Amino acid sequence: MLPVAPTRGRLRPLGLDEVRITGGFWARRRETNATATLDHCREWMERVGWIGNFRAAVEGRIQRDRRGREFADSDVYKLLEAMVWEPGYDLDPMLTQSIAAAQEPDGYLNTAFGRPGQQPRYSDLEWGHELYCYGHLIQAGVAQIRTEGEGELAKIARRAADHVCTAFGRGGIERVCGHPEIETALVELARATGEERYLDQAALFVERRGHGTLADPEFGRAYYQDDLPVRQATVLRGHAVRALYLAAGAVDVAVETGDEDLLAAVVGQWEAAVARRTYLTGGMGSHHRDESFGDDFVLPPDRAYSETCAGVASVMLSWRLLLATGEPRFADLAERTLFNVVATSPAEDGRAFFYANTLHRRRRGTVPSADADSPRAESSLRAPWFAVSCCPTNVARTLALLPAYLATADDHGIQLHQYADAEITTALAGGHGVALSVRTDYPSGGSVTVRVDRSPDRPWTLSLRVPAWTEGAPARLVDPDGVRRAVTPGTAAVTRLFRPGEEIRLELPMAPRWIGPDPRIDAVRGTLAVQRGPLVYCAESVDLPDGHEVDAVRVDPSAEPQDGPDGTVVAPGELAAVPGEPPEDPWPYQPYQPHQPLGQGTEPAAEPTGIVLVPYHSWANRGPSTMRVWLPTTTPPPTAPPGR
Amino acid sequence: MLPVAPTRGRLRPLGLDEVRITGGFWARRRETNATATLDHCREWMERVGWIGNFRAAVEGRIQRDRRGREFADSDVYKLLEAMVWEPGYDLDPMLTQSIAAAQEPDGYLNTAFGRPGQQPRYSDLEWGHELYCYGHLIQAGVAQIRTEGEGELAKIARRAADHVCTAFGRGGIERVCGHPEIETALVELARATGEERYLDQAALFVERRGHGTLADPEFGRAYYQDDLPVRQATVLRGHAVRALYLAAGAVDVAVETGDEDLLAAVVGQWEAAVARRTYLTGGMGSHHRDESFGDDFVLPPDRAYSETCAGVASVMLSWRLLLATGEPRFADLAERTLFNVVATSPAEDGRAFFYANTLHRRRRGTVPSADADSPRAESSLRAPWFAVSCCPTNVARTLALLPAYLATADDHGIQLHQYADAEITTALAGGHGVALSVRTDYPSGGSVTVRVDRSPDRPWTLSLRVPAWTEGAPARLVDPDGVRRAVTPGTAAVTRLFRPGEEIRLELPMAPRWIGPDPRIDAVRGTLAVQRGPLVYCAESVDLPDGHEVDAVRVDPSAEPQDGPDGTVVAPGELAAVPGEPPEDPWPYQPYQPHQPLGQGTEPAAEPTGIVLVPYHSWANRGPSTMRVWLPTTTPPPTAPPGR
Repeated sequence: MLPVAPTRGRLRPLGLDEVRITGGFWARRRETNATATLDHCREWMERVGWIGNFRAAVEGRIQRDRRGREFADSDVYKLLEAMVWEPGYDLDPMLTQSIAAAQEPDGYLNTAFGRPGQQPRYSDLEWGHELYCYGHLIQAGVAQIRTEGEGELAKIARRAADHVCTAFGRGGIERVCGHPEIETALVELARATGEERYLDQAALFVERRGHGTLADPEFGRAYYQDDLPVRQATVLRGHAVRALYLAAGAVDVAVETGDEDLLAAVVGQWEAAVARRTYLTGGMGSHHRDESFGDDFVLPPDRAYSETCAGVASVMLSWRLLLATGEPRFADLAERTLFNVVATSPAEDGRAFFYANTLHRRRRGTVPSADADSPRAESSLRAPWFAVSCCPTNVARTLALLPAYLATADDHGIQLHQYADAEITTALAGGHGVALSVRTDYPSGGSVTVRVDRSPDRPWTLSLRVPAWTEGAPARLVDPDGVRRAVTPGTAAVTRLFRPGEEIRLELPMAPRWIGPDPRIDAVRGTLAVQRGPLVYCAESVDLPDGHEVDAVRVDPSAEPQDGPDGTVVAPGELAAVPGEPPEDPWPYQPYQPHQPLGQGTEPAAEPTGIVLVPYHSWANRGPSTMRVWLPTTTPPPTAPPGR
Repeated sequence: MLPVAPTRGRLRPLGLDEVRITGGFWARRRETNATATLDHCREWMERVGWIGNFRAAVEGRIQRDRRGREFADSDVYKLLEAMVWEPGYDLDPMLTQSIAAAQEPDGYLNTAFGRPGQQPRYSDLEWGHELYCYGHLIQAGVAQIRTEGEGELAKIARRAADHVCTAFGRGGIERVCGHPEIETALVELARATGEERYLDQAALFVERRGHGTLADPEFGRAYYQDDLPVRQATVLRGHAVRALYLAAGAVDVAVETGDEDLLAAVVGQWEAAVARRTYLTGGMGSHHRDESFGDDFVLPPDRAYSETCAGVASVMLSWRLLLATGEPRFADLAERTLFNVVATSPAEDGRAFFYANTLHRRRRGTVPSADADSPRAESSLRAPWFAVSCCPTNVARTLALLPAYLATADDHGIQLHQYADAEITTALAGGHGVALSVRTDYPSGGSVTVRVDRSPDRPWTLSLRVPAWTEGAPARLVDPDGVRRAVTPGTAAVTRLFRPGEEIRLELPMAPRWIGPDPRIDAVRGTLAVQRGPLVYCAESVDLPDGHEVDAVRVDPSAEPQDGPDGTVVAPGELAAVPGEPPEDPWPYQPYQPHQPLGQGTEPAAEPTGIVLVPYHSWANRGPSTMRVWLPTTTPPPTAPPGR
């Protein structure tokens, strides 16, 4: 029951039969996903006709009746994948049957192309998404093979994959799909079935990209990573989801083929993207126009795009790199992205979603329609469905398979990467059984207790990730003998002959801290953010005195933020008086007057106060609001006073 | 020869037969426009087939041969308008004839719709741009009526306008066009022909907008201003060019119908947009995605959209508001926009253009193809042509009619609004002839001398605009008696019985000055810009020591910028050492350390130096470069040091 199953690599993943999440933050999210989100997605896809497309194809009325965008099939497949991973969720055989019926005899399957009256197959590789749709179909099929065994869904996926190998193999259509995804899916299918040809085809797709086999679109070929071969690129670029899916597929190919150069190229791209093109939340992608990465350090908090799917894809990539290298920095980014992007998208009830995850909302949004799909990039509040609705199903499948991201094993023992109440049962090298229980109130609290419930009669190593965010603050590890030692970011390990009942405790420093940005990120110069543990915090207007919006907040960096009630943080600062509509709206650029700094003179008086901050993932659950993560400081940068 | 000719209003415009520009900044720009840009645009539109579309329509092969986007016809019309306004430029009768031949018997004219095999007429008012195209056709026809008299072009335009009144009048298609433009054109045609029904139709279009007669697009109905009736809107919003053309048309309707409420509504929208949604350059529109205004104070300098056409449209609107109200603030914005947006778009040779006018370019661009059209929003360097090429022809017509923006008359005398070497000859009330010559080296120098060459034998008033940018710096007026007095922003007037040969001199303070932004513009917090006279300046990498990019620049606001050689400004500041590629790319967000401010510790040492700045309009004429208008200051805002 392994969502990702490399045949080699530094760490061995554990399956959903080996790791169970039993309580806490992620258990609540997963419960909502299982009991609300899966049905919500299914209901909406019935309603908007995307599931009906398969029936319409079989009944010969697809030309007239097809609904949704060209990639609508993929969301049905992503939902199926989520349903398969979710324990105890029964797949509807009718749904699988209608997909099977729509598949053509040679394995081709897409409701938007190829039938009389439709565009021909593969006539629009740039935008048609046919291979992308297969990718998600294959991932659903792989999930079935790895959980219940090869059923109808997996058979459909294999027929499609066989067709792809025929149609796109050497001597076939020697091009790629505008939206990567097929690459990682084919490698996974090769792993799940042992069929080398799927891996070969994935490697072909990875190598073909970057040679201009796609048309040069308005956004440039970097948009779909067809500007440079994967091995030559030095940073993630273009459409963020495409870039990250491609990188994940390239890692899969590199690992299976032992291609160290390709792996190193992707690691370099990840490093550059993380250092220069990633939001504090872990979010990636700063352009609305083409949903793409910006240039280095172009990370505006207003209208940050930070697509939910890019967060999902980033976690997919980090997980693969963690398995390949064992380096905790990949789990660090995955943690940041899970808590601050993936957990931010769904509403508390699991029935509405953010598509884009901005870091600054200046206007109270209007409530999206409960009955109609919403524009994807508006996202002023979470919406129940979108015209392009990739994000809800991507969140659903990620939450369904989340336990697999918690821990790994290797020849020496077990590694814990993410912290949640969990039961872990696996076998070490030689078949020696091990069982662990993890108890924690993370991320509210910083204490993580790991009890060894079963252990072989020989020494082994239990490793715990010490998060990078503890840099400069004291983290401690308490071993079964009660010895407490300081640990620094990276990995803290205990090697011993564990006896059942012994415990290790990791103590993480949970005081909220000011975080400052690299000065090259122009858009947030002169501001600070607050992080507490892995959680990024934000100011939200619903927590301010009546009538205030978040842009009235200034924070005072000379004092520290403090824990508030109910998971909030209270930051020292001040709140400008509620401005009335000014009698005259002056030109907003004025000669600089060095002796009249901000906060004096014509600016409305501000009174010192504590500013209540909430976890970023929780914002916009209390009605329309304004919100900001990066907060201007009271120590003014040298700028002109407002007004004349 | 009046580009805009209201029948009422506070000021009376002067025609191209009354105002001639004889030298200086704008004379050089106009010369390049007349000798290079007009032919350049014509050659490109032949090459890309937009002119050929009309021939193809006549020859019955348009379904197969049509080239360009749905609004390609409009660029042919805009070029014709430019050619008509340009003195001595002979219109090619073949071109007009092919357009006439493509017009259908009932006046309908569009090469993209209506013929067998094409979409039906008016079947896509949201995106089809048919009425928008008529608008530009009518403006070209009006230009012909007002210069050479009603010829073939004007007849085509009148037939189209008559058709529009029939098709879209009361009881007809009671909807509007997705892209405003027809409104202002119909009012102008009413003015040029005396036919009231064109005005009535324009008023109908203005009143119909905002009632949801267009479909709700992904960007929301505000995109095409169909969210709120014009009279109810309080700020310009949505697609910037659409918003500004609509506002211009609404002013035209308001003026002609004496509708003070409608005029006041547009003035309020203008005020709010100028105070909260306008770049320092006068540029409008901050989103690439939908080419739209952002929320209040969302004015990121990276990827500022600031479309050239929005600059043109803003000048159109400001000019109409100036004529209606006589208030110099409208001429202030027009000046800023002309020098810093309209003048920035064309290259020195008049054969390449910016579509978007960013205020911060972080990467040296690649040189756009000389042989193929370029993506509009890339604009890393000026490009010869775009797939959407509205901007070149809009610049061409604006430069052709520019002399008309310099001066006006009223019952009391003459008002000078923009400064250039010029000869002005007109008649005051009662038919008394007046002739003025203006001599100035503006905007390099600040001295403007107006000599009265002819004057009636009675007192009258000569008014000069004192630009708003002189706020806080001494401006002086010297009257014909040599009396020198301080003048403040607004209007400086001299009323006397002028004798031929008498001179008035305006002395404007031309020292470069630091400009600070309103603190609510988050994206430029902690930075300053430099303005000298009406010109915004910028740092460009070609002026920095080898290997430096503009992001290494810090400026020191404790000293003043100074004039440098050849129109440059030298700003006190420092230049960080050229950073090598760092050995490790760290996470760019780190715990805040108040005692280790920027510029110390781990940041590379910087040495004080003078930073050479050039006028923003002149950038990117010396090869690929990086550029920024807003410069971070050496006094650091409280942020974390880079790196660990």
